[in-house]
Order: sequence, then structure tokens, then C-alpha cells
Amino acid sequence: MSSGNKRNKDVGITVKKSEDISEWYSQVVLKSKLADYAPVKGCMILRPNGYFIWEKIQEYFNNVLEEKGVKNAYFPMFIPESFFLKEAKHAEGFNPEVAWIERKDENEMRLAIRPTSETIIYDAYSRWVRSWRDLPLRINQWCNIVRWETNAVKLLLRSREFLWHEGHCVYETEEECKKETLMFLDEYAKLCKDLLAIPVVKGEKTEKEKFAGAIKTYTIESLMPDGKAIQLGTTHYLGQNFAKAFDITFLGRDGKPYYAYQNSFGFSTRLIGATVLLHSDDKGLVLPPKVAPIQVRIVPIFREENKDKILSKVDEIKSMLEAKLRVDVDLSDNTPGWKFNESELLGIPIRIELGQKDLEKGVVTLVRRDTLTKETHAIDDSLVDKVLSLLEEIHNNLYNRAKEHIDKHTIKTANFVDAVEKINEGNWALVPLCDDVICEESLKERTDGITTRVIPFDQPKEKDFKCISCGKPAKHWVFISRAY
Amino acid sequence: MSSGNKRNKDVGITVKKSEDISEWYSQVVLKSKLADYAPVKGCMILRPNGYFIWEKIQEYFNNVLEEKGVKNAYFPMFIPESFFLKEAKHAEGFNPEVAWIERKDENEMRLAIRPTSETIIYDAYSRWVRSWRDLPLRINQWCNIVRWETNAVKLLLRSREFLWHEGHCVYETEEECKKETLMFLDEYAKLCKDLLAIPVVKGEKTEKEKFAGAIKTYTIESLMPDGKAIQLGTTHYLGQNFAKAFDITFLGRDGKPYYAYQNSFGFSTRLIGATVLLHSDDKGLVLPPKVAPIQVRIVPIFREENKDKILSKVDEIKSMLEAKLRVDVDLSDNTPGWKFNESELLGIPIRIELGQKDLEKGVVTLVRRDTLTKETHAIDDSLVDKVLSLLEEIHNNLYNRAKEHIDKHTIKTANFVDAVEKINEGNWALVPLCDDVICEESLKERTDGITTRVIPFDQPKEKDFKCISCGKPAKHWVFISRAY
Repeated sequence: MSSGNKRNKDVGITVKKSEDISEWYSQVVLKSKLADYAPVKGCMILRPNGYFIWEKIQEYFNNVLEEKGVKNAYFPMFIPESFFLKEAKHAEGFNPEVAWIERKDENEMRLAIRPTSETIIYDAYSRWVRSWRDLPLRINQWCNIVRWETNAVKLLLRSREFLWHEGHCVYETEEECKKETLMFLDEYAKLCKDLLAIPVVKGEKTEKEKFAGAIKTYTIESLMPDGKAIQLGTTHYLGQNFAKAFDITFLGRDGKPYYAYQNSFGFSTRLIGATVLLHSDDKGLVLPPKVAPIQVRIVPIFREENKDKILSKVDEIKSMLEAKLRVDVDLSDNTPGWKFNESELLGIPIRIELGQKDLEKGVVTLVRRDTLTKETHAIDDSLVDKVLSLLEEIHNNLYNRAKEHIDKHTIKTANFVDAVEKINEGNWALVPLCDDVICEESLKERTDGITTRVIPFDQPKEKDFKCISCGKPAKHWVFISRAY
Repeated sequence: MSSGNKRNKDVGITVKKSEDISEWYSQVVLKSKLADYAPVKGCMILRPNGYFIWEKIQEYFNNVLEEKGVKNAYFPMFIPESFFLKEAKHAEGFNPEVAWIERKDENEMRLAIRPTSETIIYDAYSRWVRSWRDLPLRINQWCNIVRWETNAVKLLLRSREFLWHEGHCVYETEEECKKETLMFLDEYAKLCKDLLAIPVVKGEKTEKEKFAGAIKTYTIESLMPDGKAIQLGTTHYLGQNFAKAFDITFLGRDGKPYYAYQNSFGFSTRLIGATVLLHSDDKGLVLPPKVAPIQVRIVPIFREENKDKILSKVDEIKSMLEAKLRVDVDLSDNTPGWKFNESELLGIPIRIELGQKDLEKGVVTLVRRDTLTKETHAIDDSLVDKVLSLLEEIHNNLYNRAKEHIDKHTIKTANFVDAVEKINEGNWALVPLCDDVICEESLKERTDGITTRVIPFDQPKEKDFKCISCGKPAKHWVFISRAY
């Protein structure tokens, strides 16, 4: 028992989420074996527990892509320097973060490792697109990306190499292109809600924060427990910017040549980090059931004299559940207390305990990871449905809890001092702003890092406010905050 | 009609496989839109048609991995130079092909882009493995790899960046490790046979050809139509070589520390190239049905006056098939002849033609891509099963055809001059060899590129032969040939 406690202290989370969220987060990620530090600073290892979540995200979104007519492909990681220079703003935006390789190509051209793939993909599109019959052309790739961050790196949230998906579509008309740019944003929001139980705000990025080379960037943003915002996915309406830079033209229905319209969109493994940060607690990881590698863990509680009976019943329960659920049994030689702690640390949504008393009554004890509440249920045909509905409840509870948190910490104010004060207290603020880049830069400087996150589609009715930064007439209400 | 012919000439394959296999292969890959050249020499684009095949390979093999207890993860692409130097032979083997990045890490350490991931993964394993209870540890990753080839590059067969999977397992005992190294090789051979209809020879690599750092390398090799061999997957028994270099030790059941035993294994997108090269013909791509993006294409043949009736019947047929098959309908305004050619170029396993006469008889015409033979079948409930069994026949025919080709072109000989002559005529030769690296190097030099491919597990009964290269007593029979 004392040795169990000692091990628990070593293995469990030793700081509270409310006291030091940064240290707490690192411990949760490392101790639940989601990810690990790599020997190269700013890189990370996605361990099987973390990669499983990524595979579930891929599975979900591959279905969406298929339904929307987007096909997967793979483009080279190396991009010639000349490609970057074709779209001036794009080059300017990404240049500081690019990693180049020592080897040059046959023309002594410098080669970048992709920080994003617009240029290399659009060079191919310029060869593939000939006629309006080739459009829409919708392609996606799942790949690794390198952006040499100088900002503080954080496991799963900000790293120099990360995994993502990037969709790149080409259209005949502006209207279709714009429509689908927003449609993919909707799908991102749905993914966050349905799979990861993360509520998001949908909207547009300001001029300053938009993607380098885009006409408009749309974003989904959420609020983390410490009051910092996080960008979880963006879709970009590129108009004809890249089509002109890369000569993507097509023969229209009238036989005349036109530049195509394009969009691009992406999300990354950062989704995993946000899921962890949002839902987990002082006991460790809390995972939405749909992405949990193990959804149900059965913990048998026995002594030598009743071991066989308990384990045979546990086998029976496992067989009942495993057709519809990812389930395992903890057969280690640890104490029950140790096993309970471990299942909580790992974020397993439901723990099923079976001891002598349960066995005698023909019941199991079900423990929910999100609330840590217990209930008993008969070991019969209804157990599978009970567990399934409990998992759904857990998902909904996680979402609602996060939604309440966001609502509670959303401050609408037209007063600069008030906004900054509230943000420093762990909120984000919805404030009126003009659309001036300089004004936004000044906001960031004067507040030591507060930036605009999203111009929500859902705008307050009030108009005629003044920009909280410069006092000129405001253009829209914008969420501002510190951010991951 | 003349315009159709002109387009056909432009779009179809313009050389025969038997006359110029290299040019034929490039045309098949490019014109069926499997892959495309990248602007950076030696890199390639996997287009949706090609990437689909890779996804099917991943799907198949992910099931195998799960069944064998191997979990997916992702390790960083950047490897510090110091890691390579820890295993001397590994460093020596890979150094010439490594691409380094210009940026250094915080310790001014040079960083490589992974040519393979043993070193970066085993550094993590040295931290993760503590006790025999942590073993076996079985992890796999799907990722991109860079090897700066100076040899001629070829779409899907040899490129500087490619996609692969690499499995890395750690065991308590030598016996278990060796057993699973061979088990994964068996799974590779099954994948080739069951999914890609490729017959392979299983065996061991010679001392000279084994993986840098391995004790033994096992391989599956096949023979391509031009008599060149191709390596399609390898598994490596690493013994304790890397465990000692990276300090992967565990506390054994007796409480004492031991070095672990390890294996690694991988195959790449080259599997797609071999599939194309082996099965395709002068009309274009031929694909094994299980990996074909479209398995059945329906081509309606109609005039304005019977258009509605034909198309409505086509819809009905499509609905019947699409629950169990990947099926589409060619509704383009091309001529039927053009449509037939295109479905053949793209390697669609079955074409269903429906014209006025078919409609009147209540039948469709089924055309097999592998044999180009036609048959009619009633449009009724039995059509789905007919198509399914035809697809199975196609798969088996492709496999058997390839197997016959290999058998016919396998020459067993103990005579050096005979072996070289037969290899130059498009065969591979099974010859007796000693196990001397120098002798193997001399073979390659004297013959302008003939190398050892595999020491087959299935050895001829004859012993007491002399090495065809040096005349000393031979150790085993070895397949030698030119290779991709």
C-alpha cells in the first residue's frame, strides 16, 4: 500500500490545473503517454495513445472529404525557392519560418521543406487544369509540415514539425469557391463538436491575421480554461491570387481562357492538444469517448480465493462489450487503488469495477471519468446499451461544460481598459474595432500580446460603436485575447 | 471521329511494353494519372489515382498490424547527427544519401531528414523500456523518407522522397524477436499475393546486401517483365546491435538488467510501381481489382432518341452494384470508342457496356480489362455476384500470369557464363555462391551490374556445388540479376 502510494505520487499529476496550467498540461500529456519530447527542440513524438486520436480525426474527416468530392493525394515535401517568390505576400509571410536543406537541386536552386503546400500544388494544377470540365478540382493531403518557430514550443500545441491536413480546391466561379470555403469551415466546427466535444466560434480573421496570400481567411477559435484563445482550423478564400501567380487558367464554357478561383484549408494535430487542455482535470487526461483508444476498462477486484469466479465473469462482460466498444481488462498485479488511478490518468471514459459484492448481486459498478460518479448496473443484455448511452452522456457533458465555460468567460465590452482587465482575469473580450492593421499592432504592443482572434459571423446587433483602440468608427465586433 | 482518333493518339500509350519498357512504363504512370513528376528532380507527386492504391495498402496492412499488436505512432523527421554516429555501420551505410537542413539545433548540431528512423525511435525506446513488463513493444509509423539518390530516378520505383511504413519492435528474447522478424516477412508476401497479385520469392539478403546495422535482413523479391528483379519489402533482425548503441535495457524476470532484442521492417510506395509494371499492357494500366479506385465503369451507348431509356437502366444497374463495388458511369460527351479506350487506359477492371440491343435483350456486356474478353449477362439480381466473381477471377488470373512468367524466367544454373547470358536475355538466375563480399563485388563489376537479390528459403536439394564467381565451395543458392 505504501509502495502503491509512492508510485502514485511519482506517476500521477502533481500540480493542479487551476494553479499552474502549463506544468499541469505537460504532465498530463507526458504521463498519459500521448506525446513525448524529441531530442530536437521544438519537435515531438506522437506516441500510440496520441496518434490514435489523430487516426480517429483522420477517419472522421476522410468521410467528410469523400462526401464533398475531395480526393487524397501526396505532393513533394521539397519546394524550390523560386516557387515561394511567385506570390509576394505568401513568400513574405512564410520566409522567416522556412527550413532549407543543404543540398541544392540540379539548377543550384535552394530547396525549402514545406511550411504549407500552396505553391508546389498550384504548380501542378497549372499543368493539370485545362478546361472547365476539369473543375472543380478538389485535392487534400495528410502530411508533415515544418515551421521553424522561435516562439515557445509546447507539446501538441506548437511545434516545429507537426502533422496536418491541407485541402486545395480549384473552381470555375467565384461564387462556388466562396461557398465551399465556408462549407469546409462548417465541417471543421462540426468535427470539433461531434468528435472532440469542443465548442468553437466561427468567423473571419482580420486583415492583419489572415493567411499570407489569401483574400479572406475564416477560422474556428475556442477558449481554453486559462482564458487564452486557440485557433483550431482555417479556410482561405484565395480568389485568383495564386491562379495569376501560377498561371492556373482554364478554357471556359464559351471557349475563352479564364483564371480559376481557389481556396485552401487545414487543421493540425493541435486539435489533440486543445482537446486535452480543455477537458482534462487534476487526476489526468479526460478524453471524449469517440477518440479514446480504450473506451471501457474493466478492473476486477479479487483475492486468491475468488479469483477464478471474478475473472470468468469479467471475461463474460468483456465479450458482451467488445463487439461495439474498445474495451480492455486490467490484469496487472497492481492494487485496485493503483488501477483506478491509472485508468483516470489515462482518460479512459468508463471504468467497470467488479468485486465479490458486485458478483453476488449480479451487478457491476460503472465509474464515469468526466464526473467520477459511480452507479451500479445489472450484468445482463442491457449493459451494452447502458455503456453506450453513458458514453454519449459523457460526450455531451464535456461539450456542455466547455460551452458554459466559454459563455461565462466571454465579455462583451466597448471599453479598452475594461477589456484588458477582463482578459487578464481569464476571459476573452468581444470588442468593437476598426479594420486598421496599425491599430491592431498598437493593441498588441500596448497590452503585451493581446491580438484579434476572430470576427464572429454572429455579430452583436449594436452598431455605431467606436474602435476601442483608436476611437474611430468601428467596423465590427472582434474577439480579442491572448492566444496559444 | 477523326478528332477522336487524334485525341486517342495523344492520350493513349504510344510505345509497346515489349519494345521500350522504360518509356512505356512512364507513359502508363503519367497517362493513367497515378503519379506525376515534381519540379524537384527525383521527387514525385502521388496523384489521387495512385494515392488511392497506397490507402488500400495502408488499410490492408493496418489490419495486420492491429492483429499482431503493433500500434501506430509518429516520430520526428529530424535526426541529430550524433544519433547516426552511435551505430557505426548504420551511419556508414546511410551517410551518402542523407539530406541535412541548413538550420542547426540549439547545440549547433547538424540535423538530418530521416532516411530511416531506427536511431530517433530507439533513443525514445531507451527511455520508455524499463522492465520485461514493457515488452514486447511494437510500434509502426507511416511517413515520408528522404534518400538523396544519385542513381537514375523513376516514378514510383526510385525517388528521393517516398512514403513508406516502418515497424520497430523490441523483445525480451532472441527467439521471439527472430520469430516475429520472419512472421512480418510472411505478412508482406501475403499482402503482395492477396492484394496486389504479385508473386514473390521469400528469403535472406547476402552479407553485402543486408541493412546497415542488421544481423540478418530478410526480403521479398519479384521478377519484372523485363527480367529485372525488384525488392518489395525487407525485415531486419537487429539482435542487440542498436540496443547496445542506444542503451535499450530492461529489468528481466530475475531482476537483472538485460539488453533487448529488436527488429525493424518496411515497405514503400514502390509496391505501387511494381504492381503497374507487372500487370499493365500496351493499352495502359491494368490494376488488381482490390486496389482499383474504380472497379466497374458503366458506359452507356445511346443516341438522342433512346437516351432516356438507356440512362435510366444504367442508373438502375449502378444502384445494384454500388453497395458492394466502387462503380461509376461515363456520362461524358466522348464517343463510345473513346470511352472504351479511356477505361482501358485507366485500368478499370470491368467495363459494363449498355446499348440499344443489350437493352432489348435485358443484358449488359461485361468486358474484362485483363483479357479484354467480352461476355453478356442478364440484368437481374445475379449481376452483382457475377461481377464480384469476375473481379476475383481477374485477380487470380493476374497472379497466375505473373507466376508463370517468373517460373518461365527462372534459370537454375551452376555455370557463370550461362547465368550471365540468361540474365541478359531477361531472366534471373539461381546460382551457387560462396558468402564472400569481395566475390559478390567482383560479380557486379565483371557483369556490369548483376547483383545478388535473395537467398531463397526454398533451397534446391543439390549441395556440393562451387561458387560460380570464385570457384570455392558454395554456401547456398542465390538469385542474381539486374534490379530496379
